[in-house]
Amino acid sequence: MAAATTASPATAPPSSFPSTTRPILRLSRKFKLPAASLSPDPSPAFQSVTAFAPATVANLGPGFDFLGCAVADASLSLGDTVTATLDPSLPPGTVAISAVTSPSRPHLAARLSRDPLRNCAGIAAAAALRALGVRSHAVSLALAKGLPLGSGLGSSAASAAAAAKAVDALFGSLLSPHDLVLAGLESEKAVSGFHADNIAPAIQGGFVLVRSYDPFTLVQLPCPPALRLCFVLVTPDFEAPTAKMRAALPKKIDIGHHVRNSSQAAALVAAVLQGDAAGIGSAMSSDGIVEPTRAPLIPGMVAVKAAALEAGALGCTISGAGPTAVAVIEGEENGEEIARRMVDAFWSAGKLKATATIAQLDRAGARVISTSRLLE
Amino acid sequence: MAAATTASPATAPPSSFPSTTRPILRLSRKFKLPAASLSPDPSPAFQSVTAFAPATVANLGPGFDFLGCAVADASLSLGDTVTATLDPSLPPGTVAISAVTSPSRPHLAARLSRDPLRNCAGIAAAAALRALGVRSHAVSLALAKGLPLGSGLGSSAASAAAAAKAVDALFGSLLSPHDLVLAGLESEKAVSGFHADNIAPAIQGGFVLVRSYDPFTLVQLPCPPALRLCFVLVTPDFEAPTAKMRAALPKKIDIGHHVRNSSQAAALVAAVLQGDAAGIGSAMSSDGIVEPTRAPLIPGMVAVKAAALEAGALGCTISGAGPTAVAVIEGEENGEEIARRMVDAFWSAGKLKATATIAQLDRAGARVISTSRLLE
Repeated sequence: MAAATTASPATAPPSSFPSTTRPILRLSRKFKLPAASLSPDPSPAFQSVTAFAPATVANLGPGFDFLGCAVADASLSLGDTVTATLDPSLPPGTVAISAVTSPSRPHLAARLSRDPLRNCAGIAAAAALRALGVRSHAVSLALAKGLPLGSGLGSSAASAAAAAKAVDALFGSLLSPHDLVLAGLESEKAVSGFHADNIAPAIQGGFVLVRSYDPFTLVQLPCPPALRLCFVLVTPDFEAPTAKMRAALPKKIDIGHHVRNSSQAAALVAAVLQGDAAGIGSAMSSDGIVEPTRAPLIPGMVAVKAAALEAGALGCTISGAGPTAVAVIEGEENGEEIARRMVDAFWSAGKLKATATIAQLDRAGARVISTSRLLE
Repeated sequence: MAAATTASPATAPPSSFPSTTRPILRLSRKFKLPAASLSPDPSPAFQSVTAFAPATVANLGPGFDFLGCAVADASLSLGDTVTATLDPSLPPGTVAISAVTSPSRPHLAARLSRDPLRNCAGIAAAAALRALGVRSHAVSLALAKGLPLGSGLGSSAASAAAAAKAVDALFGSLLSPHDLVLAGLESEKAVSGFHADNIAPAIQGGFVLVRSYDPFTLVQLPCPPALRLCFVLVTPDFEAPTAKMRAALPKKIDIGHHVRNSSQAAALVAAVLQGDAAGIGSAMSSDGIVEPTRAPLIPGMVAVKAAALEAGALGCTISGAGPTAVAVIEGEENGEEIARRMVDAFWSAGKLKATATIAQLDRAGARVISTSRLLE
């Protein structure tokens, strides 16, 4: 397979390749290939690579649209997994989706498109291929969804991150984390809006600040290893469409609210860098702009937050655009009790069933979990 | 003098004391004495104490109303000095102002009130006395102004900080930095508005984040000692009244601007904690809310910023409410050239004469610089 690379007609137009029955995402002719593509068409390093990317909690209260962190549980059920495999049956430079599974939610797999143009993993994989400058190989993707859709846990970002990471590793891990985030951002832009506060931590792990989009600048916020930061994630059986939650946002805000939220967001960043769990929690709880408009749209959310804080959580807010509620704790000791109280509150105040997961800060981000050697 | 303390009629009403010809700030009867005052009336530790407090740069671009840092030059000309002296001629528990001088600006001293109720140093000294619970002694203050008024360098905060620090030291340094900031905030509230982004760094030194006012919470932002952060401060001969600059602020802002400014403020905090001078500079330069409304009110400011950046400054913005322009550099090597270019730009674009000072981050904040022993 590797030997075939040099023989492939890298300059031939995509239309000269045979069509397949599966939808295929081609390289856009308008896409301006980045510098990497000027180097030789990279050779594959593996026959297939499986990568995992974690769930992410975006916004974190006052960090609306610019702060997020990655979270994972011990069993890696809180994230998506993508296997990228070299597929000589496809036209070179293309991506296809061979399988979508969702072991814990069989109904979910059927809702996800196999069209790589409409699938987060497909779009990100194609963007990664372009960034790598791969012209002589094609990749098929098998996506295993561990995350529910529309839950506020960065489901689309996890698929995109795992796909970009798997494709990059397939060709020898040539891309920087920043490049991988850009590949994932192509997907986010198409699927859930131009924001990087899920995809950046899904790729890079830990806490990430999206400092600006022009130029696109990320700031990794390392928190001290000794900090035992945990998250109680409680997801009610309620689909909160991101578009609707966005529409609820105020278009204009008072400058006083701006100052109060900004100072809390700045305090959140300081608390992360200084390893101050209580500071992280209280800052996360302090959003006076977005949470007050969104929480009433999620039945029971206000009561759930109150229950979490009463039970000893250091802070609580809506994860991303919801409906998941996220509470911060230090260590897992009280996690189960807090989770129980939050689940109870969703039921008693919102008439919603909910499931809880206790997760830790995921410091690694998207990572390769298995590889298969190149076929000789 | 110290022996007289216990003999003073601590419980006598203020009105029973003889009047003096100098205005005196009495303890407000409505003031709820803090816990410290329940302890014994503290004895003085010195006959007099002289304290210095540095200039401060508030706002720092996107940190409007919640971020500030202290700056000082080697000769300590960039700050105010207060000498607090035990004064048995005054009614116990009171403060008076014995002198106001301004060595480098003789006309300035005449503009400042000797009425302690209307003088930053007087108000802060009285608040410190209350916080200390001093009932048996009175203090007279001599204020030496090193800072110009209305320059955007925290002139009122420097007077207040030096006074609070001197009074506290006079009685054995019993107050915490937080208490001292609260004492200074009493003065800021009366004189220049209820904001702590000057007084907090003037007391505590370094970078300080005013996280919230209710509860009043400050976050010190230590930056690595190796960081050679310097500031070029260029003050034009133009008085920008804080009230007018405040009135120019937008009341409502777009949520997009909010997100952009907040993320830059958060990046500024991260850059301070991580010792990233370039990150500090570029974040400081990024304000899209306040600077665009205020800069046009200061003749030449837009050109001054451009000149600073062109000359190699890492960032530039308005200091506080202006009119001082502050540029950030790493090390002092290019400071003089950048200062010259900024001064030139104030003249050529704004027809304003300007003076420049190259300062360093002042990590110490308000400090005692001399003491006189108690009279036997």
